[in-house]
Amino acid sequence: MITTLEQTNEQIAAAHNAYEQAREISPQLRASWLAEVATALETHADELVALGQQETHLDEGRLRFELRRSVFQLRLFMDEIVHGEHLDATIDHADPTWGMGPRPDIRRFSVPLGVVGVFGASNFPFAFSVMGGDSASALAAGCAVVHKIHEGHLRLAIRTGAVVQEALEKAGAPAGLFSTIIGRQAAELLVDHPLVKAVGFTGSTAGGRALFDRASRRPVPIPFYGELGSINPVFVTEQAWSARREQILTGYAASFTMGMGQFCTKPGLLFAPINDADDIADTLRRELDTKQASPLLSPKLREGFDKALDAVRSTPGVDVLVPGDESEAPRPTVLVTTADEVRERPEILEQEMFGPATLVIRYSPGTDLAELAGLLHGQLTATVHAESGEDLARLLSVLRERSGRLLWNAWPTGVTVTYAQQHGGPYPATTATTTSVGTAAIGRFMRPVAYDSFPASQLPEPLRDDNPWRIRRRVDGIWESAAAGMENA
Amino acid sequence: MITTLEQTNEQIAAAHNAYEQAREISPQLRASWLAEVATALETHADELVALGQQETHLDEGRLRFELRRSVFQLRLFMDEIVHGEHLDATIDHADPTWGMGPRPDIRRFSVPLGVVGVFGASNFPFAFSVMGGDSASALAAGCAVVHKIHEGHLRLAIRTGAVVQEALEKAGAPAGLFSTIIGRQAAELLVDHPLVKAVGFTGSTAGGRALFDRASRRPVPIPFYGELGSINPVFVTEQAWSARREQILTGYAASFTMGMGQFCTKPGLLFAPINDADDIADTLRRELDTKQASPLLSPKLREGFDKALDAVRSTPGVDVLVPGDESEAPRPTVLVTTADEVRERPEILEQEMFGPATLVIRYSPGTDLAELAGLLHGQLTATVHAESGEDLARLLSVLRERSGRLLWNAWPTGVTVTYAQQHGGPYPATTATTTSVGTAAIGRFMRPVAYDSFPASQLPEPLRDDNPWRIRRRVDGIWESAAAGMENA
Repeated sequence: MITTLEQTNEQIAAAHNAYEQAREISPQLRASWLAEVATALETHADELVALGQQETHLDEGRLRFELRRSVFQLRLFMDEIVHGEHLDATIDHADPTWGMGPRPDIRRFSVPLGVVGVFGASNFPFAFSVMGGDSASALAAGCAVVHKIHEGHLRLAIRTGAVVQEALEKAGAPAGLFSTIIGRQAAELLVDHPLVKAVGFTGSTAGGRALFDRASRRPVPIPFYGELGSINPVFVTEQAWSARREQILTGYAASFTMGMGQFCTKPGLLFAPINDADDIADTLRRELDTKQASPLLSPKLREGFDKALDAVRSTPGVDVLVPGDESEAPRPTVLVTTADEVRERPEILEQEMFGPATLVIRYSPGTDLAELAGLLHGQLTATVHAESGEDLARLLSVLRERSGRLLWNAWPTGVTVTYAQQHGGPYPATTATTTSVGTAAIGRFMRPVAYDSFPASQLPEPLRDDNPWRIRRRVDGIWESAAAGMENA
Repeated sequence: MITTLEQTNEQIAAAHNAYEQAREISPQLRASWLAEVATALETHADELVALGQQETHLDEGRLRFELRRSVFQLRLFMDEIVHGEHLDATIDHADPTWGMGPRPDIRRFSVPLGVVGVFGASNFPFAFSVMGGDSASALAAGCAVVHKIHEGHLRLAIRTGAVVQEALEKAGAPAGLFSTIIGRQAAELLVDHPLVKAVGFTGSTAGGRALFDRASRRPVPIPFYGELGSINPVFVTEQAWSARREQILTGYAASFTMGMGQFCTKPGLLFAPINDADDIADTLRRELDTKQASPLLSPKLREGFDKALDAVRSTPGVDVLVPGDESEAPRPTVLVTTADEVRERPEILEQEMFGPATLVIRYSPGTDLAELAGLLHGQLTATVHAESGEDLARLLSVLRERSGRLLWNAWPTGVTVTYAQQHGGPYPATTATTTSVGTAAIGRFMRPVAYDSFPASQLPEPLRDDNPWRIRRRVDGIWESAAAGMENA
């Protein structure tokens, strides 16, 4: 089952060949390939979802939603590339009066990087796996993809890979444009191989950092788009707490247990002005009792969760507010500590418990929340529950400095795929300043190239004055209006 | 003169404070600060240019042009940020019918990274130095800058730094927003300091790689935007050679000796269908005789040039076509070899001779230029001299893969500051997929942040429905047309 180094080399070489054949095709043609993949995933939905249920303990509804999301994502990206948003085409005509001296005719657009290595995540067998966000954005960018399968859903991943390959073949894409590999050795070769030009990764901080280091140490370093860890703090103001404490606790209980707490956006910290912790225990217990428990995604992940939970639980000053249990499908755990304890041991704020556990931090009335927030490291998300008239400028500034998505009276789990989405944040949340979700993710796998003083006949399509691809462009500093009419997907 | 570690720490802390005070101001206010800097550079032009002449062996005309370029660049960037191009503001209103399930209201724009360390280059005392492209783009992005002075023009850099600081103070910018440091220890601290969030660098491949490694090894790695080395190959087709050989040789001689060959875009390789090398020696000699020689920028640089020239000259199969000399102001050297020799020893194509020397590579009629180009590593530029009707699709594809700017019947020296410019290319040309010249350089020092489900009253200006900053935005997938009318600077 493990992919040998020889096979991996062959797949990467084939991917590079496919990339070379496909790098200059029109966005319309590329979109037709993505369309075929989207259709194939829909056609095989029953089979794939059934495989997912067998391998992951995730229920059918969740898996169907993830698959639907992946299909939607492909279609949104199709629309995006047909409009040429990812090309960032910019034309500066020659200008003898240019302020620093005559400028030549110079035109720029973005081209795909080449072969991209994508590492699947354990926790989203569709959305962050074989044909998840990284693969979809790399293919949309015009790259070829070699996908490292996560062994937590091995059979599903192999089958999904086959469905994708079949669809691409049917669509007429060059062989090798997409393939999958299995095993650690193959994965390391994927990061090291000179023909691999970028890596997309979703996984643990330790594993991600090791691969980031590997990518950076190469003779020719490559960008490593890693989404690693995040604790996703939630701050509840005193006003919000007075106004709707029950509602906040209900939302919190639902969010941190969603997917058995195995979301990278799980709210792992709740800062609230709680006088007596017992006051909230009842509500939390009642809410948590309504949640269905299931086994975690893998024994390895369970082991990590138990260890992390133990570490936080045994930290001085941390108490158990709602005890979980050690059954195969563990009941959720709520721990509690105080702002004072956290100021003593801020490292507790960096302990990700990947699973159904969270830490409540009680603060006293009048506490400076901005100062508390200043103890946090980089996060994917940071949430505020407050009343709309409050002046939270300082707190929001500090949280913005530390995260990629700010939420107001909402919960961070659930990351919609849109134009404005940002899924990424300061290290260790991610290893880059980019997003791995949303249309902006496509640009990660491209780089700009300028054409200087080219005659019309030698310019690539996106840069020709007659704009044969009908894409939106910036000409002499002014963006053209949407060409064909930009409809929502 | 050397900045102590204590001083460096203080300056970085002051820069961070200044950044915190200034990160949320309007682009208009920020532009007014850049305006004051531009005016101050113009006001002090005579003094600064005179200092530059004393320290660099560069003539007055060249230095005045560089200063004019720097001033123009600041004003172009002002215009860019006032129109909000750098903010990439994107608004997705809540949509219950969104294809993957209801989406919340989600809005994104880009925020500055924080303190940026900028390393000045030796070869452009204005354009890539204290207030060069990296500093200007970092300030335009909303970052604070600590600039590492290049000791090749120490007094000029100190004085320029003082002029910039004075101007920023006069404009009302917070103290510490811009400062300069001197010395290696301070420079290393700049790359290591936790409050430094990105580095801009222009310099040698060895030095740049060492600092890239340092930035990547940090507990919290930061982006390192390094522009390192480039040989800038030029390919002359057989048709072009027949049509205008003299004109090409004249342009080549002028381009590779510009600034005594101390440009990162100097054409270091000319591939031409030369039958007998002696045929071109006369023309080159005649052209080169018209060039004024001057000493190189520094003794260290001269030493490096002599060593690199020696290494290439002593490579088997390389002959001297036009000998230079060893005087203080060295005459230019043209070396010559053949395509066959290069195929034997492709490593010769990686030898940058930073100074007035270049290598001509003779190829035989019928040679596959695309295959030859395939031997090249990453470049800032690649140039083709050809006739407009020729089919060069394969050659251009290979060159595009290996460079950031392609030129047609032009010369790579001279990098205009425009919207479409791309100054950067695959490693080792640069360590990132970005540009260090042109308006697109600003985005390097920013990162996206999304606001999810925020009430109108709590949204930052660029994301409010009433668009108080009047910037161009993408709303529900459709870009608004230019708001205030985008005029060229």
